[in-house]
Amino acid sequence: MSSAAQRLNQTSQILDNSNLRRSQSSTSLKAVDHPFKVAVIGSGNWGTTIAKVVAENTGLNPQLFISRVDMWVFEEKIEGRNLTEIINTEHENVKYLPGIKLPENLVANPNLVDTVKGCDIIIFNIPHQFLSRIVNNLKGVVEPHVRAISCLKGFEVGKKGVQLLSSYVTEELGIQCGALSGANLAPEVAKEHWSETTVAYHIPKDYRGEGKDVDHKLLKALFHRPYFHVNVIEDVAGISIAGALKNVVALGCGFVEGLGWGNNAAAAIQRVGLGEIIKFGQMFFPESRVQTYYQESAGVADLITTCSGGRNVRVAKFMAKSGKSALEAEKELLNGQSAQGIITCKEVHEWLETCEMTHEFPLFEAVYQIVYNNVPMQNLPDMIEELECIAD
Amino acid sequence: MSSAAQRLNQTSQILDNSNLRRSQSSTSLKAVDHPFKVAVIGSGNWGTTIAKVVAENTGLNPQLFISRVDMWVFEEKIEGRNLTEIINTEHENVKYLPGIKLPENLVANPNLVDTVKGCDIIIFNIPHQFLSRIVNNLKGVVEPHVRAISCLKGFEVGKKGVQLLSSYVTEELGIQCGALSGANLAPEVAKEHWSETTVAYHIPKDYRGEGKDVDHKLLKALFHRPYFHVNVIEDVAGISIAGALKNVVALGCGFVEGLGWGNNAAAAIQRVGLGEIIKFGQMFFPESRVQTYYQESAGVADLITTCSGGRNVRVAKFMAKSGKSALEAEKELLNGQSAQGIITCKEVHEWLETCEMTHEFPLFEAVYQIVYNNVPMQNLPDMIEELECIAD
Repeated sequence: MSSAAQRLNQTSQILDNSNLRRSQSSTSLKAVDHPFKVAVIGSGNWGTTIAKVVAENTGLNPQLFISRVDMWVFEEKIEGRNLTEIINTEHENVKYLPGIKLPENLVANPNLVDTVKGCDIIIFNIPHQFLSRIVNNLKGVVEPHVRAISCLKGFEVGKKGVQLLSSYVTEELGIQCGALSGANLAPEVAKEHWSETTVAYHIPKDYRGEGKDVDHKLLKALFHRPYFHVNVIEDVAGISIAGALKNVVALGCGFVEGLGWGNNAAAAIQRVGLGEIIKFGQMFFPESRVQTYYQESAGVADLITTCSGGRNVRVAKFMAKSGKSALEAEKELLNGQSAQGIITCKEVHEWLETCEMTHEFPLFEAVYQIVYNNVPMQNLPDMIEELECIAD
Repeated sequence: MSSAAQRLNQTSQILDNSNLRRSQSSTSLKAVDHPFKVAVIGSGNWGTTIAKVVAENTGLNPQLFISRVDMWVFEEKIEGRNLTEIINTEHENVKYLPGIKLPENLVANPNLVDTVKGCDIIIFNIPHQFLSRIVNNLKGVVEPHVRAISCLKGFEVGKKGVQLLSSYVTEELGIQCGALSGANLAPEVAKEHWSETTVAYHIPKDYRGEGKDVDHKLLKALFHRPYFHVNVIEDVAGISIAGALKNVVALGCGFVEGLGWGNNAAAAIQRVGLGEIIKFGQMFFPESRVQTYYQESAGVADLITTCSGGRNVRVAKFMAKSGKSALEAEKELLNGQSAQGIITCKEVHEWLETCEMTHEFPLFEAVYQIVYNNVPMQNLPDMIEELECIAD
């Protein structure tokens, strides 16, 4: 039996105790006798980083949390050893977050169902495309009192419209799900360089009361670190929309930078982009708040960080400089992975076309036309101007 | 008599004609028989760039403007020749905007009073500290029907409170004054790389009607170029405040960058900074609109451009890396010139202290304390956090 599995056995006992205590009432967050068990699904660089953050807090706050945090790891062999075993003995994710010491109370678990067993809070932090498979495997396993936070960026666009990933989790698993998003390049957070983030969580109707259920105070206690400043708000839609659409804006920034147009042009794209993000939110998620976009880390700050670098900017710059297509650029730069903006701009275009609204979003539409219809990127300013005139 | 002076004599005749025509009425902006005469005060790199933009438009739109634009130049000798003479014969400001071809209808004029003689629109584009002297020299010279646009960033803080530079011009000269501000690094605009700007102008009570007076359509015709996209709004206060306070935010960005904290931290500072700019505007200029800050080029876009480089960021980074004071950093880097944020953060601090409001602006206050009281810049996150808690 691996050490991870042994720890799991110990945990189930702790969880039993915890379940016992949970039935008692508590009035103060600082002294609940009801520690919450937390599980993290995902162990890429962002998954492992968030697991580290959370495990530091659970370790420091036994009055609120069970110290041990299970992190589901897609098992793989690293030089003949299981990745979970390496993480649990060396306390380092040598594959996806090398060089960063992880807390000893963070336990890598190769078994998905086992990872969430008896937990109160699940944090989803996996690539978008794996979400539906993971969620399917969790059906019937997760109890309805469990609450979740999605660290995945964005939404899915189908024929029915735009659906938030957090809403998808809620629909499929029957559990309340919030989101975490912010100006958070994972390596910087992992190194404990100061940054900020936004957690959004809507208190559900079946909220069981302070100390008995997840609420904004508890989420702040779970995610806030001296180097990772958390603001907790209600607006799940706002931070999810901003998190997805920023990647389309980043492509636009990459184009003008690749053309050598400089900082003024990049700032102009970000300004227009922020405006279209706000408009999109207001139009399709009227419950989202305008302030979220311009005042939260998940809004304007994440937009700025994303436009200052990252995959989407790199791909777009390469297209501008080489004259190659988006697909070719992805192939040459990203080793077969994709730049999320390439997918998102298509989804957004198709949705806006269904609604006959493409003219209301000149930048998103221009980026789509450049990526998919070979429209010269030099036309970008005119396309924005022209479409803005139509929109007036 | 210099060629510049000869051209001036010719101009006064043109101006007389123009004054004649101005008395005729006109209903359509596209066909006014009332061309406006434009003068630019200032010929630094931004002054010359804006003069180039404007002269291109006056040359192309004889139905709206008198082609010739006079630009006041502080006369100096360049290798034995007058700078005005060089500009007027070689059509290049070899000292402050070398390498950029200027329109031939842009005329350098060493005589301030002569420059504005008979003009309808004055564009101020000089360093802040020269404004009061220039304005004093123009008293009694400028007719009350003249309108002005200030390209100077910011405001002045005195014991009476915060005064916009545009209001100062209006008070001193008795003429309506708007402002132009945006994400506009001068060299990029001069090279005709695409950018955007915001012009703000409040239509005065004595507005004489379309075609007879300066209004939003006329200002768009005057400043908008294919490479320089203009949005004209009413909110002079908003764009002026944003233009001044962004320099304080840029110092904060420079500190965290100099400390090696990375993109997340820089984005966090910009987010907090934008919030404090909005709060400052709402508190002291309640007529300013929140949208101006997050939707105009003069707001969020100029903040982003300024925080991506420039004097303030350079000085702050140097302080972080060398441990030297702001004054030493300015001396070593800027050849005796100043970084505007160093002055502005002090003015803002003094004003906020008078109002007992420093705790409402944690970032502005932290930057002030770091620059003037040797508070370690590593404390920046805690200072923001702590002050935010007090403010709650």
